[in-house]
Amino acid sequence: MQAEIISIGYELLSGHENTNASWLANQLSANGINVRRICTVGDDKNDIISSLNSAFEYSEIVITTGGLGPTADDVTKKVLCKYFDCNLVFCKSAYDNIEKLFKARGLNVTHINKKQAEIPEKARAIPNISGTAPGLWFDIDGKVLLVMPGVPSEMKMMFESFILPELKLKFKIPKIISRTVLTQGIGESYLSEVISDWEKKIPPQIKLAYLPSPCIVKLRLTVIENDGESFEHIIENLIFELNEIIGEYIYGHDNQKMEEIIGSLLSEKNLTVSFAESCTGGYLSHLLTSNPGSSEYYKGSLIAYANDIKIKELHINSQLIEEFGAVSEEVAIEMASKIKDKFKTDFAVAVTGIAGPDGGTAKKPVGTVWIAVAGKNNVSAQKFLFGENRILNITKASITALNLLRKEIIKYYYEK
Amino acid sequence: MQAEIISIGYELLSGHENTNASWLANQLSANGINVRRICTVGDDKNDIISSLNSAFEYSEIVITTGGLGPTADDVTKKVLCKYFDCNLVFCKSAYDNIEKLFKARGLNVTHINKKQAEIPEKARAIPNISGTAPGLWFDIDGKVLLVMPGVPSEMKMMFESFILPELKLKFKIPKIISRTVLTQGIGESYLSEVISDWEKKIPPQIKLAYLPSPCIVKLRLTVIENDGESFEHIIENLIFELNEIIGEYIYGHDNQKMEEIIGSLLSEKNLTVSFAESCTGGYLSHLLTSNPGSSEYYKGSLIAYANDIKIKELHINSQLIEEFGAVSEEVAIEMASKIKDKFKTDFAVAVTGIAGPDGGTAKKPVGTVWIAVAGKNNVSAQKFLFGENRILNITKASITALNLLRKEIIKYYYEK
Repeated sequence: MQAEIISIGYELLSGHENTNASWLANQLSANGINVRRICTVGDDKNDIISSLNSAFEYSEIVITTGGLGPTADDVTKKVLCKYFDCNLVFCKSAYDNIEKLFKARGLNVTHINKKQAEIPEKARAIPNISGTAPGLWFDIDGKVLLVMPGVPSEMKMMFESFILPELKLKFKIPKIISRTVLTQGIGESYLSEVISDWEKKIPPQIKLAYLPSPCIVKLRLTVIENDGESFEHIIENLIFELNEIIGEYIYGHDNQKMEEIIGSLLSEKNLTVSFAESCTGGYLSHLLTSNPGSSEYYKGSLIAYANDIKIKELHINSQLIEEFGAVSEEVAIEMASKIKDKFKTDFAVAVTGIAGPDGGTAKKPVGTVWIAVAGKNNVSAQKFLFGENRILNITKASITALNLLRKEIIKYYYEK
Repeated sequence: MQAEIISIGYELLSGHENTNASWLANQLSANGINVRRICTVGDDKNDIISSLNSAFEYSEIVITTGGLGPTADDVTKKVLCKYFDCNLVFCKSAYDNIEKLFKARGLNVTHINKKQAEIPEKARAIPNISGTAPGLWFDIDGKVLLVMPGVPSEMKMMFESFILPELKLKFKIPKIISRTVLTQGIGESYLSEVISDWEKKIPPQIKLAYLPSPCIVKLRLTVIENDGESFEHIIENLIFELNEIIGEYIYGHDNQKMEEIIGSLLSEKNLTVSFAESCTGGYLSHLLTSNPGSSEYYKGSLIAYANDIKIKELHINSQLIEEFGAVSEEVAIEMASKIKDKFKTDFAVAVTGIAGPDGGTAKKPVGTVWIAVAGKNNVSAQKFLFGENRILNITKASITALNLLRKEIIKYYYEK
C-alpha cells in the first residue's frame, strides 16, 4: 500500500516549515502505509494537477493539505473540479458544521464562509470539527484522494478521527514491524564499519536505516509482515547480536528519549540530580527538564558562566582555576562535587569547555570539553574534543553528559 | 529564475522533519530565486531519477540534499553516475579536506571515508568545511544541479559560502529587496486584523509574507528590483508606517536574533545579566548563551526547579511560597531581586510557571507563567497564559522573558 502527500501553499515554498507533511508521513508509515513521495507545490492550477497525475501513477492513496481557505488565493477546490470535470455543489452537512461553529462564537455565517460549504460533486465531505473547511474524499477506481485543510490542528483531528479508520477498513493494510536501536558516542561511518559483518546477515526483506543527528545515530530495522513468514524473531535476534558488538554505545530503543530513560532510572530508585554548567549554558538542564515530570528527580542547576560565579557561588578554589584553567579535569571534578553537596543530590554532572568561536588556544582548541559525573562515592571526568560549531558543541556536550550520567546511574544502582 | 528542491532520504518519508527544505526555500526566495516545488523522495534510484527529470522540465536550478553519507543506504552519488552516464573518480581536494578533518581529531582516514572523496566525473566538488561528504556541482546546458549533504550544518555552510555566491554570478539573478520586521507578543490573526488597512496600501509588486513561529511573527516584504523603478524608498516608508501601528511589538529587523539584539544592547553599555529559572529549566539561559561572545555580559543562572533550592540557594522566603505559591507575582519578583543581588548583575530575569502537562489547577492552569525583570532600581512582574504544550510553554516563556529584558534595558539605558 503506497501513499503520496501533496502539500499545497505558496508560503511553504518561501520558507514556512511543513510540519503537516512530516506528521502525516509519520502517521502513515507507523500504520503500515508506505509513503513514496512528499511534494510541496504552490497554489497553482497546473502544478497541483501535474502533482496529482504523477502521484496516482504510483500510489493508491493521495493526500493533500492546504488551499481550502475562504480567500481568493486558495484554489484547491476549483482545481479539483477541473481535474474531475465536475461542479461545486452545496453540502448541507458541511454547512451545518459551519453554522454550529459560528453560533458557538455568537456570530452569523458570513457569505464568504457559506461558500466553504460548497464541495465538488464527485466528492463527499469529511467532517471538520474545529474549522470551517470540510475535508474531501474522492473514490477513483479503487484509489482515493483525500483533501484536507492546512491548519495543523484541523488536519490532525480529521485524519485521526475519520480518515485513518476508514483507510484501514478500505485497504488491507499489512502489518509493519519496526525496531530502532539508539546509539550515542560512535560516529556513523565508524559505526558502519564496526557492524558491517552484522549488516551482511540481515535478510533482504528487512531494511536497515542509519538515522544520524548530532552525537546520536539511530539504527532502524523495518519489515513488512507477510502471511506465513514472521520476522519478529529474526529482528529480535539481530538486535541481540548488535548488542554484543556495540552494546556500550546503545542507550535505548525505539521512540525512547535519552532524558526519558534517565528520568525513569532516577525516579524508580528515588534518586535526584543537579548540574553545574559552564559552556553548555543551560542546554543540559533544558534537555532533562523537557521531559514531563522531571521535577521528581531534577532539583536544579547552577550555570556558572563567569569565573567569579564559579568561585563565589560554586565555591571553586580560585587557585585551581589559575593553575589548571577553568576548562580542566580538576575544575570539572570540583564543579561536580560542589554542586552535588550544595544541592544535596545523589548525582551531579558538571560541564566546562570552550564552545567557540572564540576562546580556543593551541593547547585547548575550540570544542574542548571536560565532563565530570559525581555519583555515589566517586567523581571522575572525561575530556572530549568536539568541533568548531558553537551550537553543535553545546548540543554534543549536553547529550554526551546525559549519557555519562545514565551510565553512572546504571553502574551503581542497576548492575549487581 | 526558478528552482526546485529535492530532499532525499527514507527517514523523511517516515516522519523526520525536513528542516533543510524550508531553510533552502527561505534562502532562495529571499535571494530572488522562485521555488517552484519541493519534492521529498526515498533513497531509491527510480524515484530520484524521475524527480530530477521532472524538476529539469521547469527549473534552471535543481538542488538536492541527502544521501551522500558513507553507508550503503546512501545512494545519491551512484544514482547520479547512472543519470549522467559517468563513473566515480577520485577527487584530490575532497580527500585533502577529509584528511584534514580526521587529523584535527587525531585520527587516520578510514577506508569508508576515503571513498567519500570519489565523485561523479561530470561534477566538480563543492568544499564541505565541516563534514566529510563533498557537495557536487553539475553544469548541464545552462542549467545546474547542486548536490549537498543532508546534515543541516554542513548543507547551510556549503550553500552560503559557495553555492549562493556562484549562483548569483552565473545567473543574472534580479536584485531582490527584502526587509523583514520581527514582532513578538502578538498572534498572527490579530496582527493581520490590526494591520489590514496598512496591508491594502502595499503596491502589488511588493509581496507580504507572514512567517509565524512560537511567540514570534515575522513580516517579510519582498520585491524584485527592476531597472528604472526603485522600491527601496517605498518599503522604508511602509516599515515606518508599520512601526507607528505596531511599534510596541517590533523587536528587530531582518536576520537579527533576539539574543543578538540583547547581547549588543548589554555589551555596548557594559551591562551584565543573570537569570533565576524555574519552569523554563535552563532554556532561557540557553537562548542567550547560544549567541557567541555571551560571556561578556551573561554571568550565570540559578535554575531553582525544586522549592527547597528556591529557599536554600536563592534565599526565597519559604512563607512567601506557602502563602502565594511558587508560581506567583511575589515569588517571581523575589527570585529576580535575589539573583540580581547574589550574582551582582545590572539586570536579572526570573521565570516561574507551570509548563505542564501536570501541576495545573483551576486557578493556575497549565501554561500560567510569571516573568519578573529586575533593572536599575526597580523590579516588576507580568503574568502570561500560554497553552497546554510543555515544550511550547517553555519556548514561549523564554522568548517572552528575553523580550521583556530587552525592553527594560532600552527603557533605562537607551531612551532619554
